[in-house]
Amino acid sequence: MRILVTNDDGIDSPGIYALAHALRKIGEVIVVAPDRQQSAVGHALTVSSPLRATPFHRDGAMFGYAIDGTPTDCVKMAISTLLPEKPDIIVSGINHGTNTSINVLYSGTVSAATEGMMMGIRSMAVSLTSFDHAADMSIAAEYACAVAKQLPTLELPSDTILNVNVPTVPRDVIKGIKITRLSKSMWNDHYERRIDPMGHDYFWINGQYITLDDDITDSDDMALKDNYVSITPIHYDLTNRAVMKRITLLEEIIL
Amino acid sequence: MRILVTNDDGIDSPGIYALAHALRKIGEVIVVAPDRQQSAVGHALTVSSPLRATPFHRDGAMFGYAIDGTPTDCVKMAISTLLPEKPDIIVSGINHGTNTSINVLYSGTVSAATEGMMMGIRSMAVSLTSFDHAADMSIAAEYACAVAKQLPTLELPSDTILNVNVPTVPRDVIKGIKITRLSKSMWNDHYERRIDPMGHDYFWINGQYITLDDDITDSDDMALKDNYVSITPIHYDLTNRAVMKRITLLEEIIL
Repeated sequence: MRILVTNDDGIDSPGIYALAHALRKIGEVIVVAPDRQQSAVGHALTVSSPLRATPFHRDGAMFGYAIDGTPTDCVKMAISTLLPEKPDIIVSGINHGTNTSINVLYSGTVSAATEGMMMGIRSMAVSLTSFDHAADMSIAAEYACAVAKQLPTLELPSDTILNVNVPTVPRDVIKGIKITRLSKSMWNDHYERRIDPMGHDYFWINGQYITLDDDITDSDDMALKDNYVSITPIHYDLTNRAVMKRITLLEEIIL
Repeated sequence: MRILVTNDDGIDSPGIYALAHALRKIGEVIVVAPDRQQSAVGHALTVSSPLRATPFHRDGAMFGYAIDGTPTDCVKMAISTLLPEKPDIIVSGINHGTNTSINVLYSGTVSAATEGMMMGIRSMAVSLTSFDHAADMSIAAEYACAVAKQLPTLELPSDTILNVNVPTVPRDVIKGIKITRLSKSMWNDHYERRIDPMGHDYFWINGQYITLDDDITDSDDMALKDNYVSITPIHYDLTNRAVMKRITLLEEIIL
């Protein structure tokens, strides 16, 4: 099995290293990842500047290609141009930080898997709930490996990816895997106003994440809270067909 | 009606100017938009650097606030921090270039409307099929205005936005409005390899857009081809519930 590995934390992050290391047990691993931190870039694609692909070494050996672009760029460029053959699966991660609920729309990690799916490859994203760069990635890597192994035979629809989130707790505290839905949530954001040394305003984003359906037990956020590994099948069938009929009155607009 | 107007082509683009001008007929318009071109940034959010909001003047009068960030940043910052009151609706556009099918995932224009929806505001995106900066935006602006007027009373579900695309043809050639679904399509991308003056490789993206369901008449791409204005209700209910049951075998994984 040929496995393309990418992420959004950058090719030098501990998460992608642990992931690539674990996946080598089940297949041939090719790493193509951003050359720097690309968190919260969503599905951004570089169209108005060119890209470079630079060989990146780690522990004295070629680890993969570093791209000066986004996670979406990495997947597009790997599959269309860099790799001699299409990979069988794509695994994106391991992200430093949870990617549940509405956060999948901001997540570069999830967007890389989405781009893979759009290019016809079975894809999954993996995230650890901890933002600590020293966090132990090995358990998340093992779960990623176990799920990746089954990805080709799962018969996912062609518009669907798997979004895996792993709680940051000791191995014996993890209760197992739970198939979940995205929770309903929101960010209560504000921008903190500061004054620079020249006397001009600037603003830092500062937000609180609020889950809105804590009474429902099969959501991704609740599964993590209960120390389960959460796996959500995410699809991109974005047309709201039920609403199509309800807004046909708009067809009566005449200028 | 208070209307927040934003875009991804930048606050100085002809599209946002035509849109703001038209919408002033139906409400109070506030413009908060990127200070430069931000196409294909998707739902990118600026989290690791601060932002600035600069008053932007046009024709000798204050036109709006220019933000050195993405369309998503503009909507988040406008609603949470810059505006004294929440707007009643958000209109994003008019984009220079079509935003149909899978392109809504890359589109900064659509993502701005999505962010508005996530913050609880009725939102819509508007795009003209032409990439020509000299293209006539007035017909698209009039359609945007007519749809925006009805947006508050349409009773859209809270997870749904309207995605409006207008063909670039004379007024009397437009056949009217059609409610559509996103077409099935793909990009057949490759990266063109070039050599810089120092002898190093660099890559330019180059792609062909291919629609896969031209036999189906109610898609956004087909409506535009037939000279209709296309309106697609897009929702972000991303959990594939049908697949949840089919992959419960993953819950049996034990490390």
